Amino acid sequence: MPVSATASAREILTNLHDVMASRSPAQAKLNSVVRIIAEALDSEVCSIYLLREGLLELFATVGLSQEAVHVTKLAPGEGLVGTIVANVETLNLAEAATHPDFAYRPETGEEIYHSFAGVPIIRRERAVGVLAVQHADPRRYADVEIEALQTVAMVLSELIANADLIDATGAPSTRPQATGAVRVPGFKLVEGMAAGVAVFHQPRIVIEHTVAEDVEAERHRVYAAFDKMRDQIERMSNQAEFGVGGEHDEVLATYKMFAYDEGWARRINEAIDSGLTAEAAIERVQQRTRMRMREIKDPLLADRMHDLEDLSNRLLRIVSGQLGTAAQMGLRQDTILIARNLGPAELLEYDRRRLKGVVLEEGSLTAHVVIVARAMGVPVLGRVRDIRRLIAEGDRLLLNSVEDLLVIRPTPAMEEAFEAKLALTQKRRAAFAAMKGEPPVTKDGHRVTMMVNAGLRDDVAALDLTGADGIGLFRTEFQFLVSATLPQRERQQRLYRDVLDVAGDRPVVFRTVDIGGDKALPYLDHAEGHDEENPAMGWRALRLALGREGLMKAQARALIEAASGRTLNVMFPMVSEPWEFDEARALFEAQREWLRGRGKPLPTDIRYGAMLEVPALADVLDFLWPSLDFLSIGTNDLTQFLFAADRADPRLALRYDWLSPAILRFLRRVTKAAQEAGKPVAVCGEMGGRPLEAMALIALGIDRLSITPAAVGPVKAMLRSLDRGAAMAEIDRLLATPARTLRPALEDWAKTNGVELS
Amino acid sequence: MPVSATASAREILTNLHDVMASRSPAQAKLNSVVRIIAEALDSEVCSIYLLREGLLELFATVGLSQEAVHVTKLAPGEGLVGTIVANVETLNLAEAATHPDFAYRPETGEEIYHSFAGVPIIRRERAVGVLAVQHADPRRYADVEIEALQTVAMVLSELIANADLIDATGAPSTRPQATGAVRVPGFKLVEGMAAGVAVFHQPRIVIEHTVAEDVEAERHRVYAAFDKMRDQIERMSNQAEFGVGGEHDEVLATYKMFAYDEGWARRINEAIDSGLTAEAAIERVQQRTRMRMREIKDPLLADRMHDLEDLSNRLLRIVSGQLGTAAQMGLRQDTILIARNLGPAELLEYDRRRLKGVVLEEGSLTAHVVIVARAMGVPVLGRVRDIRRLIAEGDRLLLNSVEDLLVIRPTPAMEEAFEAKLALTQKRRAAFAAMKGEPPVTKDGHRVTMMVNAGLRDDVAALDLTGADGIGLFRTEFQFLVSATLPQRERQQRLYRDVLDVAGDRPVVFRTVDIGGDKALPYLDHAEGHDEENPAMGWRALRLALGREGLMKAQARALIEAASGRTLNVMFPMVSEPWEFDEARALFEAQREWLRGRGKPLPTDIRYGAMLEVPALADVLDFLWPSLDFLSIGTNDLTQFLFAADRADPRLALRYDWLSPAILRFLRRVTKAAQEAGKPVAVCGEMGGRPLEAMALIALGIDRLSITPAAVGPVKAMLRSLDRGAAMAEIDRLLATPARTLRPALEDWAKTNGVELS
Repeated sequence: MPVSATASAREILTNLHDVMASRSPAQAKLNSVVRIIAEALDSEVCSIYLLREGLLELFATVGLSQEAVHVTKLAPGEGLVGTIVANVETLNLAEAATHPDFAYRPETGEEIYHSFAGVPIIRRERAVGVLAVQHADPRRYADVEIEALQTVAMVLSELIANADLIDATGAPSTRPQATGAVRVPGFKLVEGMAAGVAVFHQPRIVIEHTVAEDVEAERHRVYAAFDKMRDQIERMSNQAEFGVGGEHDEVLATYKMFAYDEGWARRINEAIDSGLTAEAAIERVQQRTRMRMREIKDPLLADRMHDLEDLSNRLLRIVSGQLGTAAQMGLRQDTILIARNLGPAELLEYDRRRLKGVVLEEGSLTAHVVIVARAMGVPVLGRVRDIRRLIAEGDRLLLNSVEDLLVIRPTPAMEEAFEAKLALTQKRRAAFAAMKGEPPVTKDGHRVTMMVNAGLRDDVAALDLTGADGIGLFRTEFQFLVSATLPQRERQQRLYRDVLDVAGDRPVVFRTVDIGGDKALPYLDHAEGHDEENPAMGWRALRLALGREGLMKAQARALIEAASGRTLNVMFPMVSEPWEFDEARALFEAQREWLRGRGKPLPTDIRYGAMLEVPALADVLDFLWPSLDFLSIGTNDLTQFLFAADRADPRLALRYDWLSPAILRFLRRVTKAAQEAGKPVAVCGEMGGRPLEAMALIALGIDRLSITPAAVGPVKAMLRSLDRGAAMAEIDRLLATPARTLRPALEDWAKTNGVELS
Repeated sequence: MPVSATASAREILTNLHDVMASRSPAQAKLNSVVRIIAEALDSEVCSIYLLREGLLELFATVGLSQEAVHVTKLAPGEGLVGTIVANVETLNLAEAATHPDFAYRPETGEEIYHSFAGVPIIRRERAVGVLAVQHADPRRYADVEIEALQTVAMVLSELIANADLIDATGAPSTRPQATGAVRVPGFKLVEGMAAGVAVFHQPRIVIEHTVAEDVEAERHRVYAAFDKMRDQIERMSNQAEFGVGGEHDEVLATYKMFAYDEGWARRINEAIDSGLTAEAAIERVQQRTRMRMREIKDPLLADRMHDLEDLSNRLLRIVSGQLGTAAQMGLRQDTILIARNLGPAELLEYDRRRLKGVVLEEGSLTAHVVIVARAMGVPVLGRVRDIRRLIAEGDRLLLNSVEDLLVIRPTPAMEEAFEAKLALTQKRRAAFAAMKGEPPVTKDGHRVTMMVNAGLRDDVAALDLTGADGIGLFRTEFQFLVSATLPQRERQQRLYRDVLDVAGDRPVVFRTVDIGGDKALPYLDHAEGHDEENPAMGWRALRLALGREGLMKAQARALIEAASGRTLNVMFPMVSEPWEFDEARALFEAQREWLRGRGKPLPTDIRYGAMLEVPALADVLDFLWPSLDFLSIGTNDLTQFLFAADRADPRLALRYDWLSPAILRFLRRVTKAAQEAGKPVAVCGEMGGRPLEAMALIALGIDRLSITPAAVGPVKAMLRSLDRGAAMAEIDRLLATPARTLRPALEDWAKTNGVELS
C-alpha cells in the first residue's frame, strides 16, 4: 500500500511516462498501463473502458478475461462503468454487486471480485472513458489510491487523444452529458433571432501534456502564472469594476480571495509533486474541487465555485500562454458568442458581419455590453444557466431572444420552424425597406417628422436606409461606455463631425452624456454612481454632468466645434428642474463665447432642448419655455418614474400599459402646454416605435417621433393609413371614461378604420 | 533545531503546562518560561516584557543581565519591543541594530546579540507584552520557530492575566491602539443624540485556558463546533437572508465558503496538535490570518477577512458555549450598542429604557433594523468603519447622528458641549409637551386635524402624550418586519384590537402592509422582492399584496374582526392605478361578507383610503373618487418618484426641495381635485412634520396632517401663530413666478408675519 497520494501517483506516472514515450502501438500502451496500475495499487483487476460509437468498450484489462476485450460494451448510464461516465463521478465500493446500477457481464469473469473503484477519464470536461480497479476482498480503496487513480486517468486522457482511440469530439455520441436537442430558457437582453454556431469568447484550453519532464520547472511556471494572475486581478479591480470589464464587484472579491488563498496554490503544488505538468495540475485540482462541490448543493456556494472555475481557467490560459479571446482568432461565419459576462469593448472587437448573436450566462438589462449590443443590432440572450456544461464549441444554436429561448443542436424540424419565423420577419422588413421613399404623411395630409435614434458612428447609415428626416436622438454616452478611459475632446469632436457629415442637411440632435447610476464608468470616481440602492433614480445624466464641469465643458466644446458652419441641436437628459437646464445652457453659451473670443469657426445657431423624463418637470414647464427651443419626451424613463415601476422587472413590465389613461393624459397635458407655448415637442422613447402607441401619440397631437430604425417602416405604414383628425376625436372621447388601458379600444378603432398595424 | 512547528510548539507547551499548573509565584513561573523557551529554540536570550503603568517593563529574562529585570522600561512605540506592541506585529531580524526603531539599552548587556525575534503577547485583541528571543549569530529565525513563539505568547497571555501581572484592561495605558478621545464619522440612519457606554451586541470571548489537557478531546470539540456552525449558517441563509438576520447575501456566501474551507479547519487542527485548547487554536489561527492580511492592503479582501473574523468569533462562541448576546446578559444603564449588523428582532430584545443608541459598522437606511429603531426612537449611526478596533467594551461614547459623528472616550470639554446641545433639545421638547392640551387652530380660526404616525403597540401612547386627534397612519408592516415568520391572523388581530382599545374614540387609519422591494421578508418567496435593480420602484406594497391574496385576506379579516363595533379606517399603499384600489377594496368587502355570513360581529363602517405616492395616480383621480372615502399623500415616496431622485442618496437628498414649485403645484392640483370631489385629503409623509413645510401645506389647502409624535409640538406652535388666509394668498402669488424653491420667500414671510418656526 502506498504511503501517500503524491508518492503513489508519482511512482505510477514515472512508469507511465516511459510507456507513453515509447513507439509501441496504442493498444500495447494501454495494456502496459493497466499492468502498471494494477501492480502499483496492488489490485487484482485493472481495466480501461473507452467510448467508441456511443458505447463504453473494454479496451484493456488485467485480471478480467482477455476474451472480453473489445467485446464487452456498455451504454452510458448502464452498469457501474456507464454510471461513472453519465455522472462524471468516482465510485468506490466495497461490494460492487450491492450498487443499484450494477450490471453483471458473464464474459468478463468478474463475479469473483467484490470491491470496485472506478474514475472517469475526462477530455474537454466530458467523460470519455473509465479507469477501474477491482479486488476480490470486499474492501474500499483508500482515498490516496483513488487520488492516484484520478491523476492517472488524467494522463490517460492525453494518451487516448493522441492515439485517436476515441470518437472525435464533434460527434454527438461522445457527449453523453449533452446529446441531442436541448431547449433552455433565458432572459431577453436584446431582442432578435439568430442561427449559428457556438464560439466561446474564452476558448477552452486543451491540455497537451500531462506528465512533467521537470517538476521544478513546472513549479516555477505555476508560481509565475500565479503572480501574473494576481496582477491581472488587481488591474481588473482598479480599472474595470464598473462594468467595462463585465465583472461584478462580488466576483472580483472572490477572485482575489482565491488568488491569495494558500490552500489552492498548495493543492496545485501537490499535484505537481505527483508528477503532473503545471496545466494538468491546475486542471486536476479543479476536477477534484468540481467533484467535491457537487456534493454540497447550495446556490450561494455554487456561485463562488463558478468564480473559482473561472479563475482556474484564467490560470490555465496564463500558464499555457493561450491568452486571446475568440475575437483574435479569426471568427467563423455565423458565430453565436458564448460567455459568462462580456465587456462592451470586448464585444466591439468582434467582426459585426460574422457575429450573429450573444449568449450570456449572466448579464443584466443595464449592463454596458447590452446597451452596445442593442446599438449594434446583435441579439443577446442572458441568464442562461449552465451554458458551459450544455454547449460545446461548434454546436449549432438557434437563438430566439424574442421568446427567451435558446435551442442547442436543433432537430431538422426545429430548424425549419425557426427558419419560417425568421423568413417572415425578413420579408416584412423588405416590404418596409421598399417604403423608404414615401413621405410620412397621414391620410388627411398631416406631415409627421420621423427621425431615428443612434449612438454609434455606423448607425448614421440608417438615415439613408430608412429615408428618415434626421437623427432625433444621438446618444453621446455610447462613446464613453465602450471606452476604458475618458474619451478625449478631439476624439469626441471627430465622432460628432463624422455624424454631421454623413447626415448632411438632415438635423442631428445630440443628447449630452447620460452616464452614472446604472451606467457607471470606470474612470469616474468610485463615489459617483456606485452602491446606489436605486440607480435609476440616482446620481446620473445631467446631475452628474453639472457636478463635473470638466466633462461637460469638454463635450460642449467638442459639439460646438464639430458643428461649425451648421446648426447645432443639443439636448440635456434627466432635466428635473428648470434651473438645471439653465445651468447647462449657460455652460454651453460660455464655451461658445470662449471659442468666439479665440476666433474659432462657430455653428450658425445652437438650439437647446430638454428631455422630459422626470415627472416633476411637467409642473413647471412655464418656467422653462423662455430659454428652451424644443422638448423631447423620453417615454422609457418617464413611464417608469410615473408608475414607480422599474421596467427591468418582468413582473412590472406589463403591469402598467403605455396606453393607460394616466400616461396618455400626462402626455396630452405636456403636448398642449408645449403647443400653447409654440415649442416643438417630440417623443424619443420606445413607445413611439410601436405602431399602435405611435397612433395614440399622433392622436394626442405629437407630430415628431424619433425611433429605432427598424420601426420606421411599420410606423410609416400606420401613419399613411391614418385619419389623424378622426383619431384625435376618438382619443379624447376614450380618455374621458374610466379604463385600465385604451389598448383594446384603440386596436378596435384602428381595425374599423383601416389603420395598418403590423 | 526543531523539525516542525507543531512538534516544537507542542514540546514547549507540554513543559509550560507543568509550570503553569504549579503553585509557584508568578515571577518564578515567568523565569521558568523564559528558560524553557530559550532551551527549546536553542536561543541565547529569551525575555518577557509586560505592559505596566503604560510602559513595557522587562519582567523576566535569560541571557540578558538580571539587573535589568524590572528596570528596563520602554514606552509603546519605543525600540523594537515598543514597536511590536504599538503595531501588534512580529519582528524577525538577523541584524537588530539595523532596524530604524532599534533602541539600545546598556543595562541589558544585549550589545553582543545580533539577531532578534519578538512576538506580541495579545490579550483581548490588544498587545500587552512581548516575548523576545535573541542570538549572537546574525541569523533570521525560521518560520517554524516564529510560529512556536507565537503559540507560546498565546499561552503566556493566560498566565499573565491569571497572575494579574499587567494593568487592568480598563485603564487607558494598556490600550496603545486606542487611547484618548477619538472622533469618527458615520452615516445618520436614525436621527438623535445619546451619551452612554459601549456594549458589544456579541460580547467578546475571553479565552480562559490555552493549553490542552487532552488533545483528542479538543479536536472533537472543534469538530462539533464546525458542524454546529455550518448548521447555523445554513439556517441563516434559508431563513434570514432577507434582512431579518441583518446579514447580507454576500456575507453569507463568504461565511459558507470559509465554513466549508478545508484550509481553515486544517490550520485549526494543526494548532490543536501543537497543544492548544480548541478556543486557543481558533484564536491562534485568527491572529495569524490577521497578521498576514495586514500586509495585503486591499479593500475587497479586507471585507472578506472581516467576514472570516466574524465567523471565527462565531466558532469561538460555539466552542466556548458563550452564545448569548448582550441583550440576554442584563443590560447596564445608558447602553450604546455596538454591532456589525443587527436584525430587527435582535434589537427588540433589548430593554428600551436602558438602550440609548446603536452604532453599526454597516447598515443602510432601508434595513429593517433601522425602520424599527426609528419607531423605537433609538438613534442609530451606521457605516462607522473599524469600530471593533476603535472601541472597547465599556468605553464612554457620545453618539450624535444629527452630525454624523461618534465620539469615543470624550474629553470633559467634549462632554460639556454635548450636554449643552442635548439640554437645549430637551428643554424645547418640554415646552412643546406643555402645549398638548391646546387645540391645533390657526390664528384665523381654522381647525386642523393633527394625527400621529405609529407602527408598534407602544407608539399608541403618543396619542395621550401629544394630545393628537388620532393615528393617521398605522404602519402594519412593522409586525411583519420584526417577525421571523408570517404573523398569524390571530396575532395581527390582537395587535390591531389593542391599538384600537388604547385609541378609544380617536380614529386609527391602518395602512395595509408595505413590504417587498427594499422591505423583503424571509418568509416570502425568494423570487419576490429580491435582486431588484431599483427596489423602491419594484414589486412591493399593494403590488405584492394583490399578488398574494392569502396574505391580504388574512390581514383584511384581522382588521375587520379587530374593529368590530367601531369604524375601520383602512388605506392601501402604492396605489398606481384605480383598478388596484378597486381590487383591494373588493377583497376587503368579500371578507366582510364572509364574516357577516358566519354571524361574526362587524365594524359599524369601513372607510377606504388610498395613499397617493405614485405620480401617475394624480392624472386619474376622477376614476378613483366614486369608490374612495379618503386620500392620503405619502410625500416621502411621492417626491422621490416625482424627481426620480432616491432619497437615500445624500447627493440627491438636498438637491430638490420639498418647497420647490414643482412639488407644491403638484400638491395643489391634487388637493383642489379632492376638494372639488368632496374627499378628505391628508399628508402623512415627513414633509408635514416640519413647521415651514407644514405651513406651505396648510396654505395649499391641506387641513389634515399625520406626523411623527415629536413633531406635533413644533407644528402646533406654527399653526397657532399662522393666518391661514394670508398664507394661502401668499403661496398662490409665489407659485406664479419662477423660483428654484420657495423656502427663502416663505421663511421671510413667516418671519414678517410672526409665524413661530422652531
